Amino acid sequence: MTDVGAHLDRLIRDVPDFPEPGVVFKDITPLLADHDAFTTVVQALADVGRDEHGAPVVDKVVGMEARGFILAAPVALALGAGFVPVRKAGKLPGPTHAVSYALEYGEATLEVHQDAFDDGERVLLVDDVLATGGTAAATRELVERCGATVTALAVLMELSFLPGRAAVGDLPLHSLKTV
Amino acid sequence: MTDVGAHLDRLIRDVPDFPEPGVVFKDITPLLADHDAFTTVVQALADVGRDEHGAPVVDKVVGMEARGFILAAPVALALGAGFVPVRKAGKLPGPTHAVSYALEYGEATLEVHQDAFDDGERVLLVDDVLATGGTAAATRELVERCGATVTALAVLMELSFLPGRAAVGDLPLHSLKTV
Repeated sequence: MTDVGAHLDRLIRDVPDFPEPGVVFKDITPLLADHDAFTTVVQALADVGRDEHGAPVVDKVVGMEARGFILAAPVALALGAGFVPVRKAGKLPGPTHAVSYALEYGEATLEVHQDAFDDGERVLLVDDVLATGGTAAATRELVERCGATVTALAVLMELSFLPGRAAVGDLPLHSLKTV
Repeated sequence: MTDVGAHLDRLIRDVPDFPEPGVVFKDITPLLADHDAFTTVVQALADVGRDEHGAPVVDKVVGMEARGFILAAPVALALGAGFVPVRKAGKLPGPTHAVSYALEYGEATLEVHQDAFDDGERVLLVDDVLATGGTAAATRELVERCGATVTALAVLMELSFLPGRAAVGDLPLHSLKTV
C-alpha cells in the first residue's frame, strides 16, 4: 500500500461542531484541490482492488453518494472496472433495491439499481470516511441483493472512536489513515 | 474532440416521468458501468481543458453535486488539476459563498468554500447534463466570487429544448451530445 500519511495529515482539516455541536468534521477538500495528493490517494485506494502482482481483481467499483463518488469514480477508471453509484433515496430513476440504516448523525436510506451488477461480479466499495459503518454495511447488502460479491472496502479515513470496523464484520477493510 | 456519440446513444437510457410526470430523465448509469465508455467520455471532457497542442490550460476542475462529481473528479486527475466540489447548501464545513437559483424542477442553493481558489486561477466546470443552465450559471458566479476565472463548461449532454445554452451567456460550452 502506498504511504499517504503525510499528504493526509497536511491536507485534511478538522472542522469542529460540523454538522452539529460536538462532531469534528474531517474536511477533505484541501486534499482534493491538491492534484498530487489526490492522485496518490486514488492510486492507494485502487491498490486495494489489485492482487499481489498488481492485476485488478474487481469488475465494478461502488461509490457512495456524495463524497464517495469523488474517490470511487477515478478508482474505477484506474482499475479498468465499471463504476456504480449507490445513492440516497429517490435519486436513481430505474427499479432499485433499498436499505435503511442509522448514520453517525441521523438516518438514511440508500438505493442501487437492480440491474447494476451481473451475477457473481466482484465489487470494491470506496468511500472517504468510515464512521459508524452504517453506510458501508447497507451498501454491501445492496450489492449482495443484486447477486454480486463485495471483496473489500477501501476508505481514506477510519474513525477509530466509532464502531465502523466492527459494523462491517468479515468484510476486508483497508483504510489509508486511522484517526 | 473525441467522437463519443455511439457510446452515448447506446448507454444513456431515457426514463419517462422521473423525477416527476412529464420529465424524461437521462440515466447515465449504464455508461458509468461500462469502463471503456466512461474512459472515453472522461477523455473527451478533459480535452475541453487543453490547448491545441494537448497541454492542460486549467488549474482547477469544478464538479457540481452529485453526478457532476463522478465526471469532474477523473477529468481533474487527467488534466493535472485540482478538484473543487460545488455542493448543495449546508454540506461544506468551512466558510462558503452561496448562490440560489431555479432548477428544471424546483429551486436550490449551491455553495463553494471561500478559499477553494487562488486569485486568477483558470477553472473548468464539468457536469453531466446542461438543462436550464441554472446550476452552471450559479457555479460560474461562485467561482468568480472567489477571484478565479471560468474558462469553459464541459457537459456530457445538452438538452436543446431547454434554455441552458442561453443561460450560460458568453461562457464557452462544449457538449459531447445534444438531445
